[in-house]
Amino acid sequence: MIEDKHQQRTPLSNLGEFGLIDHLTQHFEIKHQSTVKGIGDDAAVVDFEDNQCVITTDLLVEGVHFDLSYAPLKHLGYKSVMVNLSDVYAMNATPKQITVSIAVSNRFPLEALEELYAGINTAAKFYNIDVIGGDTTSSQKGLLISITALGHAKKEDLVYRDGAKDNDLVVLSGDIGAAYLGLQVLERENEVFKVNPNNQPDLSMYTYLVERQLKPEARRDVIKLLNDLDVKPTSMIDVSDGLSSEIIHLCKSSDVGATIYEDKIPLDPTVISTCEEFELDSTTIAMSGGEDYELLFTIQQEDYTKIKANPSLTVIGHITPKNNGIYLVTRGDTKVEIKARGWNSLSEE
Amino acid sequence: MIEDKHQQRTPLSNLGEFGLIDHLTQHFEIKHQSTVKGIGDDAAVVDFEDNQCVITTDLLVEGVHFDLSYAPLKHLGYKSVMVNLSDVYAMNATPKQITVSIAVSNRFPLEALEELYAGINTAAKFYNIDVIGGDTTSSQKGLLISITALGHAKKEDLVYRDGAKDNDLVVLSGDIGAAYLGLQVLERENEVFKVNPNNQPDLSMYTYLVERQLKPEARRDVIKLLNDLDVKPTSMIDVSDGLSSEIIHLCKSSDVGATIYEDKIPLDPTVISTCEEFELDSTTIAMSGGEDYELLFTIQQEDYTKIKANPSLTVIGHITPKNNGIYLVTRGDTKVEIKARGWNSLSEE
Repeated sequence: MIEDKHQQRTPLSNLGEFGLIDHLTQHFEIKHQSTVKGIGDDAAVVDFEDNQCVITTDLLVEGVHFDLSYAPLKHLGYKSVMVNLSDVYAMNATPKQITVSIAVSNRFPLEALEELYAGINTAAKFYNIDVIGGDTTSSQKGLLISITALGHAKKEDLVYRDGAKDNDLVVLSGDIGAAYLGLQVLERENEVFKVNPNNQPDLSMYTYLVERQLKPEARRDVIKLLNDLDVKPTSMIDVSDGLSSEIIHLCKSSDVGATIYEDKIPLDPTVISTCEEFELDSTTIAMSGGEDYELLFTIQQEDYTKIKANPSLTVIGHITPKNNGIYLVTRGDTKVEIKARGWNSLSEE
Repeated sequence: MIEDKHQQRTPLSNLGEFGLIDHLTQHFEIKHQSTVKGIGDDAAVVDFEDNQCVITTDLLVEGVHFDLSYAPLKHLGYKSVMVNLSDVYAMNATPKQITVSIAVSNRFPLEALEELYAGINTAAKFYNIDVIGGDTTSSQKGLLISITALGHAKKEDLVYRDGAKDNDLVVLSGDIGAAYLGLQVLERENEVFKVNPNNQPDLSMYTYLVERQLKPEARRDVIKLLNDLDVKPTSMIDVSDGLSSEIIHLCKSSDVGATIYEDKIPLDPTVISTCEEFELDSTTIAMSGGEDYELLFTIQQEDYTKIKANPSLTVIGHITPKNNGIYLVTRGDTKVEIKARGWNSLSEE
C-alpha cells in the first residue's frame, strides 16, 4: 500500500481570521427561536421572554487540560462543549446557546481545526445547542478553547449550590473515578508508545475508562429523570474536580456539614479492577479523580421513595449541621475528614 | 536609596485555583437587579424580563494582541473589557454583565493578576458592569484573557450590520488611526529601551496616541448621544480591525456598496504629525490601523440635520447600490477600491 504523502494541510494563514471563522462555522445551524442573531454581527442576540438565563464559561488549555498525543481533536471538541453543558445542567437549566473561542498556533493546519469543530458540532446537534458566536485568533503556543454556554430556566426551577438543609440526602448520578483512570491508562500507553512507536496499544479492557476521559457526556438524562420523577434537588453541583472538592463546595455554599459513606460510592467494576492493576486506592480515585461530569445533589428525605429504585442515582450520605463537619465514613467505620484534593491546574505539584 | 529586594511575589500555586478566583473576584460588586446569581455557582444567572440579551466574546493573547513590555497589566485589564463593551454598544445595547476567564503561566505572580483585575474592576465600575463569572487556569506560555459580555436591549432598539440602505449616510464617531500609531510609538521606544535600558522615553508628544492604544474607551457616550438626538442608525459596527475591514463587513451584511471620501476621514492632528515623522500615509493608517473602537454606522438622509453640528460625529460617505462596489474617493478625486487590510492575527506576514 502506498502511503499518501499528500495529506491535506492548509496553513491557517491562507484563510485569514474572517475566512477561518466563516469556514469553521458554516455547518452550524440555528435551532432555537430564542436565537435572534447568531454568528455574523458584533454580538449574538438571545431572546429570553420570561425565562432566566444561565451563563457559564470554561477554558481548556493544551498541556494543562488535554494532551493531543492521545486526545483526538474531534473528541476534544465534543468534550469542551460537555464541560460547559454539565455546568448548565447542574443549575437544573436547559443549555441552548454556546460561543466558541479558540487560540491556536500556526502548527495546526486547517484540517485539525475542522476536526475540533466537527466534535463541537456533533455535541451541539446531539444536545440541541446553537453555536452563536466566538473569536478565533492565534496563540504563541498550543491550542486553547474558551466556551461560554447559555442556559434557560424558569426562575422557580433553578437549583443553586446553597440550598442543602440538615437531614437532606446526598445523591450522586452514575459512577465516578473512571475518567481519571482513563487518563492514567492513556498516559501509560503514551509512554509505551514513545519507547516503541510500533507497539499497538490494546485498550479494549479499558474502553469504559477511556471513553469517560475522552468523550464524557453531560447528564441531561439525569435532569430529565429528576423532572419526570417530580424531584427538585435542594442543591446541586457537577462533579468536575472530584467528589471531595464538590461536596466541600456544596456544604460551604449551603452552610452545612455532610457525612458520606465509602461503601455507598458508586464505582464501575472496571474502576475497581484497574485500581488494583495500578495499585491505586479506588476511594481516593473516586474522591479526588475529577472529570466525571456526574451530578452531585441533595434531596429532601421525603423524596427518597421516588428515587430509591433508580440505577442512575445513588444515595451516598446525608447533610448534617455545619459544626458536624464534612466526613467520609470508611468501610472500617472510621470517620475521616474530607479535604479538597481535587484537580488543581495552578498547583506546581 | 536602598533597593527593595523583598518586593512581594506570591506564587499562584500558594492559592490554588479556587483561592485565586476568590481572591481576584473579592472586589466585584453586583450592580444590577437582573443579575440573579454572580460568581460562586456552576453558572451565573441573568434575568431579562422582556429584554433581549446580546452576547459577545473576545480573546486577547499575549504576544499576539498585547506585549507586556509596554502594556501595563492594569491598562490591559481595562482594555480587555472595552474591546467587548464596544461590540455591545455597536448593537445599540447596554452592556450589563461580563465573564472573565484567564489562562496564565507560572511566571506571573499574584500581584500581576491583581493589577490585571484592578483594571477590569475599574472598567466594570466606570461602565456599570457586573462581573458574574469566569474560569482561571494555568497556561503553558504567557497570558490569555477571554471575556464574554452580555448586553440588554429592547428588540426595537437593536441595530445590526445588515440594515444599511442605498443613499444612507456613512458616519464615523471620533477619529481613527491613533491607536495603531500609539503602538508604533511604543514599539519604537521599546526597541530603544532594549539597546539602552537607562534611556527614559519622552512620550509626552504622543500622549493621545499612546492612550488610544493602551486605554481605549468604548463609545457609550455616542450611543447616548444618538439616543438623545433621536437618531437610530440603520446599521452599525465597531471599528476594531480598521475602517477598510469594517466598511466591507457592513456592506456585505447589508448587500450594498459604499463610497467613502478621503478628505472626510477624521484624523487627530497628532496622527497627521506622527505619520509625517514615521513617513507613513495617514489615510492608510486610518483605513487599516485598527483598535480604534469607534463606531461606524449608517443613518437615513433625513437624520442628517440632527447630527450635522456634532463634533463627535463625521459623515464620511454614503451607501450605494451593491454593484457600485466599495470605494474610497481620494483627495485627488481618484476612486480606489477598498480592500480589507485590517489587522489579521492569523496571517504569517
